[in-house]
Amino acid sequence: MHIHIENDPAAAPALRLSSAHLRQALDAQPMLRGQFTLTENDDPAQTAAFLANCDILWAGRKLALDQFIAPRLVWVQVMSAGVEQWLAHWRSGVALTNASGVHGDKGAEFILMAALMFNFAIPGFLQDQAQRLWRPVFGGCARGKTVMMLGVGSIGRAAAKLLSAQGYSVIGVTRSGQCDADVARCIAIDELDEALPQVDVLVSTLPLTPQTHRLFDRRRLALLPKRAGVVIVGRADVFDYQALREQLTSGDLAGAVLDVYPQEPLPTDDPLWHTPGVIMTPHCSLDDHSAYLDRCLALFIDNLTRYRGGQALRNQVDPARGY
Amino acid sequence: MHIHIENDPAAAPALRLSSAHLRQALDAQPMLRGQFTLTENDDPAQTAAFLANCDILWAGRKLALDQFIAPRLVWVQVMSAGVEQWLAHWRSGVALTNASGVHGDKGAEFILMAALMFNFAIPGFLQDQAQRLWRPVFGGCARGKTVMMLGVGSIGRAAAKLLSAQGYSVIGVTRSGQCDADVARCIAIDELDEALPQVDVLVSTLPLTPQTHRLFDRRRLALLPKRAGVVIVGRADVFDYQALREQLTSGDLAGAVLDVYPQEPLPTDDPLWHTPGVIMTPHCSLDDHSAYLDRCLALFIDNLTRYRGGQALRNQVDPARGY
Repeated sequence: MHIHIENDPAAAPALRLSSAHLRQALDAQPMLRGQFTLTENDDPAQTAAFLANCDILWAGRKLALDQFIAPRLVWVQVMSAGVEQWLAHWRSGVALTNASGVHGDKGAEFILMAALMFNFAIPGFLQDQAQRLWRPVFGGCARGKTVMMLGVGSIGRAAAKLLSAQGYSVIGVTRSGQCDADVARCIAIDELDEALPQVDVLVSTLPLTPQTHRLFDRRRLALLPKRAGVVIVGRADVFDYQALREQLTSGDLAGAVLDVYPQEPLPTDDPLWHTPGVIMTPHCSLDDHSAYLDRCLALFIDNLTRYRGGQALRNQVDPARGY
Repeated sequence: MHIHIENDPAAAPALRLSSAHLRQALDAQPMLRGQFTLTENDDPAQTAAFLANCDILWAGRKLALDQFIAPRLVWVQVMSAGVEQWLAHWRSGVALTNASGVHGDKGAEFILMAALMFNFAIPGFLQDQAQRLWRPVFGGCARGKTVMMLGVGSIGRAAAKLLSAQGYSVIGVTRSGQCDADVARCIAIDELDEALPQVDVLVSTLPLTPQTHRLFDRRRLALLPKRAGVVIVGRADVFDYQALREQLTSGDLAGAVLDVYPQEPLPTDDPLWHTPGVIMTPHCSLDDHSAYLDRCLALFIDNLTRYRGGQALRNQVDPARGY
């Protein structure tokens, strides 16, 4: 069988897989040794020729798959967790596996940090500091406060575990209203509205699907109490960023720690840069380049073993569900 | 016996103890019921008259005790953890108990937050945000990084426990080189210099004593690596703030999360307000007004029970040691 590696010419070297590196990983597995032909490409002009002949694709960049002729292609492993751009151009009959889970550890730490920052009023103190204002706030402990975790996939689950260990009361939100994560309770998306007024910290790890697009519109954001902070590390378009910005400016929300944006890089003239209470990180807070490629590769090797053994793949996306 | 409550007229109502409140707490303990005369004062002009007659003093404000005649006074319970201003005017033969331990839970959460903020490069991203710069940094997890905890009293011990649970490697620093906290290892102050180059986050919970005054001078701060962040929640004068500011400005340190300052409130013309990498909170990050008075009172009641039973008091300060 033929595995083709399609790298992103714009990606950092630490995120590009070489065929030599993959060969080494395959050779370490007796079941996989000598079973695959490998090719590697980072020139978009050559992509079509490689896709025409490969069985399995390792995708380091996004491709509109329906625009290629790929008669032998059976499976695509991508390096991202979100796959909405892949699914917009999908070919039926091809398996898609994502990199969900690779981000869990670092993402959970980031979410814990952000939740604590709201407890200690950091968004407000940063504004005071800019104006040289000394205005102490003697608040209580984070322990016992309520975090709503939108999406309890690998990042949400890892974060719920950390937050619960820290004494937060975590409400998980899933499509079904059920999850196996370490949460105080789990509710369905259609129960959201009644729970929102009790939330101290709202965290979104949601993927973008037709069901989650603009789930947090102006009306729903307004159900959060004024003390609440918002943390967005999933897809930006789950939120109405303009409404979010307006509610922060008017003091109807306490702050926002944002890692993702409707357009990235965020345009320099976007008013979000200087919105009161906004703390921004440039879409990097879940990605750990030092470990990312190795973790994706470990997942791929595990999946190749499963594939050869006729077992179900890990992280296989359901195109109908969208994640 | 006569217990006198001396309140601070400038303190928030939540921090003032009334004699009715104390009476209620005493009456709940069979051993203490009916044993004490209580007085209460918040007028500095009347303080001398009350001190002349009391046996035990609950001190909600700092007093230069050597300037009062207090022949019957045997014990002072103060509401702060740091007592250097008391000891500068101490009377021998009087027991001093402080409020150490009352801050543990909230302080530990604050320190964990600050350590995570350095891991996620928040001090740098805040500067980028102010300039509308999009410059991702794909760093690793906090797990495995090294925190040096200066002082392993109640706050340091609680913080070490949280940080260790989070996967940090914590080096405790004490006078003796020994501690019973949850640390990877404990060193003595005279072993500091060789450990500093390995530190990712330096946390100071140290009290101010002749031994700790300016312990972190310019030379010692310079032993920290450029990647290091500094968190100061103990006494400010343990550090040379001017040297700290200069090393932050030159990029020789990654950032500082500061809750305490050489002068408070920090004067508006102090350059620290706008020093790159500095995140300031106005001396409130360990104090939880919602619980503070109740916790201090619980400690006092426990100590009164011990006093009546002839047992050693909790939190008794050794004037020679300074904490």
